[in-house]
Parts: sequence; structure tokens; C-alpha cells
Amino acid sequence: MIVALAGGVGGARLAVGLTQVLSARDLAIVVNTGDDFEHLGLTICPDLDTVVYTLAGVNNATNGWGRADETWSCMQTLAALDGETWFKIGDRDLALNLMRTEALRRRTPLSQVTRTLAEKLGVHHRVLPMSETPVRTRVRTPDGELEFQDYFVRLRCEPPVLGFRFTGARTARVPRELQKLMASANIEAVVVCPSNPYVSVAPILSVPAVRTWLRTRSFPIIGVAPIVGGAALKGPAAKMMRELGAEVSALGVVRHYGKLVDGWVIDRADASLRTEIESAGRRVVVTDTVMRDRAGSKRLARDVVKFARSLAKARAG
Amino acid sequence: MIVALAGGVGGARLAVGLTQVLSARDLAIVVNTGDDFEHLGLTICPDLDTVVYTLAGVNNATNGWGRADETWSCMQTLAALDGETWFKIGDRDLALNLMRTEALRRRTPLSQVTRTLAEKLGVHHRVLPMSETPVRTRVRTPDGELEFQDYFVRLRCEPPVLGFRFTGARTARVPRELQKLMASANIEAVVVCPSNPYVSVAPILSVPAVRTWLRTRSFPIIGVAPIVGGAALKGPAAKMMRELGAEVSALGVVRHYGKLVDGWVIDRADASLRTEIESAGRRVVVTDTVMRDRAGSKRLARDVVKFARSLAKARAG
Repeated sequence: MIVALAGGVGGARLAVGLTQVLSARDLAIVVNTGDDFEHLGLTICPDLDTVVYTLAGVNNATNGWGRADETWSCMQTLAALDGETWFKIGDRDLALNLMRTEALRRRTPLSQVTRTLAEKLGVHHRVLPMSETPVRTRVRTPDGELEFQDYFVRLRCEPPVLGFRFTGARTARVPRELQKLMASANIEAVVVCPSNPYVSVAPILSVPAVRTWLRTRSFPIIGVAPIVGGAALKGPAAKMMRELGAEVSALGVVRHYGKLVDGWVIDRADASLRTEIESAGRRVVVTDTVMRDRAGSKRLARDVVKFARSLAKARAG
Repeated sequence: MIVALAGGVGGARLAVGLTQVLSARDLAIVVNTGDDFEHLGLTICPDLDTVVYTLAGVNNATNGWGRADETWSCMQTLAALDGETWFKIGDRDLALNLMRTEALRRRTPLSQVTRTLAEKLGVHHRVLPMSETPVRTRVRTPDGELEFQDYFVRLRCEPPVLGFRFTGARTARVPRELQKLMASANIEAVVVCPSNPYVSVAPILSVPAVRTWLRTRSFPIIGVAPIVGGAALKGPAAKMMRELGAEVSALGVVRHYGKLVDGWVIDRADASLRTEIESAGRRVVVTDTVMRDRAGSKRLARDVVKFARSLAKARAG
């Protein structure tokens, strides 16, 4: 059993690969909910939806969010009515958001809502929110603290970041299924997907039960570096690293995670960093980490799983 | 100042006429909210929306609800996700419903939400919900009591009706603007639009303040018969009359309202009923009451206003 920790696009792409090489029994994808928010009366879960839509093959790969086969009548009409349109939700995407919000209002746990909707979309691998209860990423900037989507969408990541806070993390209620996973002896490895370390992976790690589980583990943790050739493939990870004084490279990422991650998968573009990462006590695999299509996702996932199992075997042996 | 009491399609069509012959200062349209309901987490107000959309010229005249320039992606996706689709809401219609629901959640009164949205749609005549607080029509049937939309949409008006109940009516909070109207000495007449007597007009009359106001009035009340040639132009009015043992004719409608309505506008098809209605002490105007387009609405509205003013003058004189 392999557990992947995922944010949005990068996480979703590796998840697509992992679902191709691992059965539904052998994989669980734990997804960041720190960028969830309430908008237009809806509970919006951008990373959960990106993962589910991507696994279902209905995602919009160009935008990195929402659905490919989308229409925009509701948003156009909101605009005509002077409603809030800074956060775009397509008409089809609205259906899922309406159903989720209604189910949550009836006290169905987020994990169960997610599973039901994922199954309707043909996704049978487990996609688990990191928390049933709201955990919200807040971004510290020189002008004060911002809600994540204010920072991310409305302000297009323009304000420099000073740090992050995850409200609700301390009291987060971990889904029962994730609790069971964490109590299980059958975890071969945890994979940190190539997602933003600060706003995709850190919120997951901010949940105390998850952090404790990973700190006291007997299995290896494998990371796929989200920085390739000194840049992020998508999103503000590189900008954030720069603003926080980190080296914008796979090495910077390795240092960020420290001893939490045992082995790193880095891109061929960063092969020259291998020695330095290894000298810091981490194991390294160099491969193509840029996933351009399902086949690319599958190739990387195969490398990741192979690497994870070799580290697990080394530990056991 | 003329006040019109309106339900859905028929009311909306006469309202379109009245807005053509009366200035925004001289007309207020009080709309039934008895068929409002909560669905998919949204507060849906079918009659208010039919009136506003019709006044704005964006209504779907074929369906009698929703917008003409509509798309259905959200509903299609709800269907694919096994969501509730028995009540159809188009993608553009959703925008208004999302904005209204969000505004109500923030404790904006329904009358103010309605005015704001109507104005965005270019409607400047006053459209007032009969109540700020929920009043809900319930339909008594041999199999028990049904929520109105369950009866009306889900069961397509099939169950025979035994009667109606309007929960919340006794404690209904009348919009401040309607309160002011009711306290005003400037009301020339009230017009009962050709709407369903039982489920469009009765809910309005079930609000105690409205009922008292009309019973103790010094102005005339004019009705436009919603039954033409023994049939309803739209909706279950005729079926309901039959099931409740009323004569399915303009005369049946006249009897239903009794002394509340002073003068009736009936269709040429029902000219033969004039004498009997007059012998019951009511004044009658015979004209074309079937409004096929804006011009037809305007012609009828002109006849109605003229009739109303003549009765008002007769009272004053």
C-alpha cells in the first residue's frame, strides 16, 4: 500500500500515473484541503476536484483547474448581475459544487462526499481529503494576512509571502479511512507528489496526526521535486521559495523537507544536484519528472514506486 | 397608484402590460412566494423570477419559467452525478439563484435582493414579494400533504387536491415597502392578475396584514379571470377547481373571490356570463384577456387600468 500526498496539478498528474501502476487496494491519495473555501454559498475544494477530475480524465489541462468540457453561462450571468466573478466556476463544475455543499450541509463527511462523487465520475482509487473539518491556508504578506484564494486567485500570487498559517489544523478531524491507513502496518511508502511544498504539502503535514504518523514511521518517504531546472512547472512555488530566502532548485526543496523525506526523484535537468543531495544523506533517482501526458505520468509513477519499494526493502533488510 | 397581485405566467404577462401603461411610481407588483422552496441549497422563488424575467424580456415564454437564452450544462452534469434533477434550473438561472441565496444568508431581506437583481436586469418597476419570511404552500391530497413543488413539478399536479395550507403566513413579515403601500391613501385600485386563485393569489391573501388591508379598503379591487372558455390557459387552475367542486368557468372564479373583488375583466369567449356575474353585484368588462405578446399585454392592461379608475371614480363620487 502506497500513500501519496497531493496538491493540485502536479499531484494530480502523478496520481494519474500511480493509478495506472497500482490497484485501488494498493493506493490512497491524500489531498490538500487548505485552499478550500466558501464562495457563493458553495464549499469549493480546488485540489480535491483537480485530483478527481484529472483521474476521471475530464480535467482542463490548460487551466489546471475545472473541467475540459465546460460552459460558462452561469459566470457570464453573474457578471451581468454584478455578482462575484473573480473565482471562475464553470457550469458543469457547479453541479459537483452544489451537490458537495448540499451533502456537507446534511452533515455527510467530506471524505464520503468525495468518494461518492469520484465514483460517479468513474474514479475508484481512494481520494481522501486530509481533514473532514475546515483547515484553511492563510498567507502572511507585508500588508497583512490573506485568505488563500484571495492571494492565489484574486491577487494572482502578486503579494510577496512572509509565511503561512493553517487555521483549524490543530483540531482537524482526520477521515476515518485515513486514520485506519495511519494505524495500518501495510504502508510500503509515502510519496510526496511534485506539489507546492508551502501551500499544497505543508497543510497536509500541519495536521498533527499526519505529522506524528510520518515522524514515527517505519516506512520510507519518497519525494518528487516540484522544481525542475530552477523553476516551478506551474504555480507560485519558485516565487515563494525566492521570497522566503530558499534556494530555488530541487536542492532547496530537499533542504525544505529535511529528514522527513528519505529519497528524492529529481529531473534529468537537475542531475548535477545528485551528489549534493546524496551527501546530505538522501537517496536520489534521476529521471524525467515532467509529466506531459498519461504515458509520462505512468513512466514517472513506475520509477517512483520502484524507488519506494527499493527503499522499503533496504529498510526491512 | 395601482397594486397588482401576481403569481407566475399570467400574472407576469399582465404585469408586462401594466408596466407599459403605468410609470414605476404608479405601479407595484406584489408577487406570490408560496411556491418558493429550498433545493440544492438554493432558495428558489419561481413566481418572483417569472415576473422579473418576463418584465426584463429574458423569460422563456414556451416553458413559462426560466430564461429564454438558457444552457443546461449544470443540470446535465447533475444527472451524470445522480443528483436531483426533477426541478430544472438553467445555468443562467443558477446565477440569480446563487446570488439571491447568498444575499439571504447574509440577512438581506428578500424584497431588497429582488429589487437589486431586478434592477440589474433592467426592471425598474417595483416587484415586491408578499413576505420577507418563508410562507409555504402545502397541498392536501388523499395521500397526505405535499410540499408545493413536490405536487407541482415532481408529481406534475397529478394528485387530486383537497385543499391548501400556507405555513408561515400567520407570522409573515410583510416587506417594509408593502407596509408603506398598505398605509398609503394613494391606492387607486388593486388588480388581481389572471393567476391561479388557489396557489398564486390565495397565498398572498393568506398574509393577515394583506387580507385586513383588502377587507377594509376604500379602493376597488379588479380581477382578471384566469379561466377562459372553461379552461386555464396554463397550469392546474381548472383541474383544481374541478377537484374542489367549483364550476370551471369565469363564474366559478367570481364566486371563489366573492365580495373581495368588485369588478371582473372576462374574455369575449365568456361574454355570455356577463349578466350572471353582474346579477351577483359585480361590475364586468368584456375584452380580449389572452395575452399573446407584449402588445396584447398592453391592450389588456389599458382596459384593466381604465376599468379600475372608473370604479375608483364611481366610489369617490
